Amino acid sequence: MDEDAKAVATALARESAADGLRRLTDLLLRVADDDPGLAAIAQELDRITEELDQITEELDQITEELDRITEELGASDDGRRPVGVDPVAGRANACAPPLEVWCLPDGTAGASGSLGITYQGPRGLVHGGVSALILDHVLNVALSEQGPAAAGGELSVRYHRPLPLYRNFLATGRLSRGADGELRAVGEITVAGVVAVSAARIVGGRGVRM
Amino acid sequence: MDEDAKAVATALARESAADGLRRLTDLLLRVADDDPGLAAIAQELDRITEELDQITEELDQITEELDRITEELGASDDGRRPVGVDPVAGRANACAPPLEVWCLPDGTAGASGSLGITYQGPRGLVHGGVSALILDHVLNVALSEQGPAAAGGELSVRYHRPLPLYRNFLATGRLSRGADGELRAVGEITVAGVVAVSAARIVGGRGVRM
Repeated sequence: MDEDAKAVATALARESAADGLRRLTDLLLRVADDDPGLAAIAQELDRITEELDQITEELDQITEELDRITEELGASDDGRRPVGVDPVAGRANACAPPLEVWCLPDGTAGASGSLGITYQGPRGLVHGGVSALILDHVLNVALSEQGPAAAGGELSVRYHRPLPLYRNFLATGRLSRGADGELRAVGEITVAGVVAVSAARIVGGRGVRM
Repeated sequence: MDEDAKAVATALARESAADGLRRLTDLLLRVADDDPGLAAIAQELDRITEELDQITEELDQITEELDRITEELGASDDGRRPVGVDPVAGRANACAPPLEVWCLPDGTAGASGSLGITYQGPRGLVHGGVSALILDHVLNVALSEQGPAAAGGELSVRYHRPLPLYRNFLATGRLSRGADGELRAVGEITVAGVVAVSAARIVGGRGVRM
């Protein structure tokens, strides 16, 4: 295997591991400790818990090894970042929501997909802060097409209606200029064409008073 | 082992597994594909990738089993939620940042800790959307002390200065009334006493125009 093929294989293994972590995170949350059906399957869960303990031990061994390697590499955070590290768009980051994130040449940015219980706030609904996280990201992508990444300024998020779990949604962002000529990005999360959450991102502006 | 002890053991195993997933997520992101030192340790990484593949296979087997159990339980999302499911405060949720979240009797809510590369936006800094996620949560906790959980309304987040990775920060939220008598929660994230991000959460208010 040449170096390029090896790099691709490593990246794929990384994403595959992240996918596994993502699925396991979701599934661990969906089996309730106090579910009425739990007594009937307690034995089975006991076995799975034992398996999980084993895996946790293996994770401990592997993380110790990775710790050692990270130490050998020195301050690895100063190195170039691996692809997919971002907590919203990064496919190799097991905490990144399972979304497709894109940016069109016209500066329109977007993200689509649906979210499971890992991202739940009120029962059956996406956590409002997760909607803010996604919109912040999409609006910053739209802004960053204009130059260096946005810093400072403000994010305003308006919650119109609940965003359900397990429903496909579309988050979009585009550039806009305020009445004062200030550059901003505006966008929204829609489900079946209906706006659930909208947001505006102002960079370095005076903006909204806290 | 009686039922209570078993429930505690299951909850601890769940949190321990989540901790393992959290650490692995962090470590997988910190070892860069294209680090100059990588060639020297390629063999070691190959071996770890193989181990990860094996674990991913085991994860697949376990998730299949959990899928089957979830199906047997019926619509498990209608059951009571297990402790620690929340994407900000839930210790059993591997995607929840490793923070201590609390609420005092006077309605003051807070979260403290530090964040690693899993939550990185610009290099070395916490993703602005992650700050918004944490503040949304803390402000909603403060508001929820007044009655049913907050819904609708607006969240405004102002970014004053960058929030570094691996630095302890304190996020706090408290109730406040606007000039119009409207109930809101206000708060901020501080590092060594200096405000990095501030926010206001208005429930159902007319609030800021998008």
